[in-house]
Amino acid sequence: MAEIVRLDDLDDPRLRDYVDLRDVQLRLQLESERGLFLAEGEKVVRRAIESGHHARSFLMSPKWIDALEDVLDQTKAPCFVLDDVSIEKLTGFHVHRGALAALERPELPAPQDVLAKARRVVVVEDLADHTNVGAIFRSVAALGFDAVLLSPRCADPLYRRAIKVSMGSVFWLPYARVDDWYGAPDLLREAGFTTYAMTLADDSVPLDSVPHDVERLALIVGSEGHGLSTRWEQAADHRVTIPMSADIDSLNVASSVAVACWELRER
Amino acid sequence: MAEIVRLDDLDDPRLRDYVDLRDVQLRLQLESERGLFLAEGEKVVRRAIESGHHARSFLMSPKWIDALEDVLDQTKAPCFVLDDVSIEKLTGFHVHRGALAALERPELPAPQDVLAKARRVVVVEDLADHTNVGAIFRSVAALGFDAVLLSPRCADPLYRRAIKVSMGSVFWLPYARVDDWYGAPDLLREAGFTTYAMTLADDSVPLDSVPHDVERLALIVGSEGHGLSTRWEQAADHRVTIPMSADIDSLNVASSVAVACWELRER
Repeated sequence: MAEIVRLDDLDDPRLRDYVDLRDVQLRLQLESERGLFLAEGEKVVRRAIESGHHARSFLMSPKWIDALEDVLDQTKAPCFVLDDVSIEKLTGFHVHRGALAALERPELPAPQDVLAKARRVVVVEDLADHTNVGAIFRSVAALGFDAVLLSPRCADPLYRRAIKVSMGSVFWLPYARVDDWYGAPDLLREAGFTTYAMTLADDSVPLDSVPHDVERLALIVGSEGHGLSTRWEQAADHRVTIPMSADIDSLNVASSVAVACWELRER
Repeated sequence: MAEIVRLDDLDDPRLRDYVDLRDVQLRLQLESERGLFLAEGEKVVRRAIESGHHARSFLMSPKWIDALEDVLDQTKAPCFVLDDVSIEKLTGFHVHRGALAALERPELPAPQDVLAKARRVVVVEDLADHTNVGAIFRSVAALGFDAVLLSPRCADPLYRRAIKVSMGSVFWLPYARVDDWYGAPDLLREAGFTTYAMTLADDSVPLDSVPHDVERLALIVGSEGHGLSTRWEQAADHRVTIPMSADIDSLNVASSVAVACWELRER
């Protein structure tokens, strides 16, 4: 059972994992340096713990202790208790968001290990927007793809906004970072994947022309602004596009991935 | 050619269409009462005018006049010019967003008229989120559906956030409000549409079991929180669902619509 620790000093060093939650840049740096990530809201905290993540601590106002009793029972991490006003002061948030937890950032598996167990993966290059990253995880999970690979510069799936939009799927869907991005096409090929780059390149084929019997399939998507890098456009086995009406030139990247995961599902 | 009017008094009544752009509630009320909507940013202003909307006025700092000269040439509406600092004070925005235009809110066509010319429509019940409304318009437009029908309480496609996310497709994609929402199922039936309600109801069929030769097809989607009303669930000709993995229970509504528009496209 978590130890319940009532605090009143906002400068208490034990609270330093929870400061300034609205400052995105600060949080990205702080969470990466300290090897933590933050879960926000009763449901998300519960999902984080139930999916096997290790809490460093919890922070909540007294009224949330009962609601999370079963979760707190499963851990030895301290549960810091502050009144609502103090929590808002510390975090910069309104208190209706309920409980918070600071969790150990898990060590990610090697890309090879993720690929070995997967048949359908989405590979994401340099997405900047945490909402898009979260939405892609949610679609990948819901539509039965097995895993996600991320480029070195792709936004963090464990940032709060991404966690929330993903509906917690970032907690259990296998994913990995590919450090050697230049070598990623070979990595996928060696793992037996046929690669499909989503791009408007001249030799792109329509999404619905992809055969249904591809055994291991990787869908590669590029960043919001610039799309896929030339490296991936050229190195992918196939280039594929969602046919669009004449009057509009693209779907947003999260919608594109949802459509593609649906069309390319195992069947 | 628009008349260029340099102003320096922020209380000038001619500027009252541009106040407090960050106050969503105020703006929704003000824009509806005054029969206007706002376009923000050079590209969006251009698209609004090029798609035939009538400007009441423009507001920009001096540096944007040249960039929009061709647009201003097409209209007799005044172009108010203020310095960047004053624009920020008036609107509550940073000035990097460039030009603004206040446009006449168009009279929407009757639902019957929209349906008469359409073969694939999305019908949206009570969506609250402007981002979702904009994303749905973008997907509908990109994936070749013909029109959108909105319930009386569905969020406004001409609110700035919706316009932006829609990539301007709200300017040209036909849409209508259905005032008599209870009668909407009959309205669609009388117009020759087969209706498919997206829902997790017990008798829902998988999306990919819908025949490809439905002549006129309407996809009905419900609100973010509660899904479709009982009325629509019961009155639709068919209930349809996107099959999900065991571990996650839904896609977000905008992604669902993208997947469904793709699967139900004319082919």
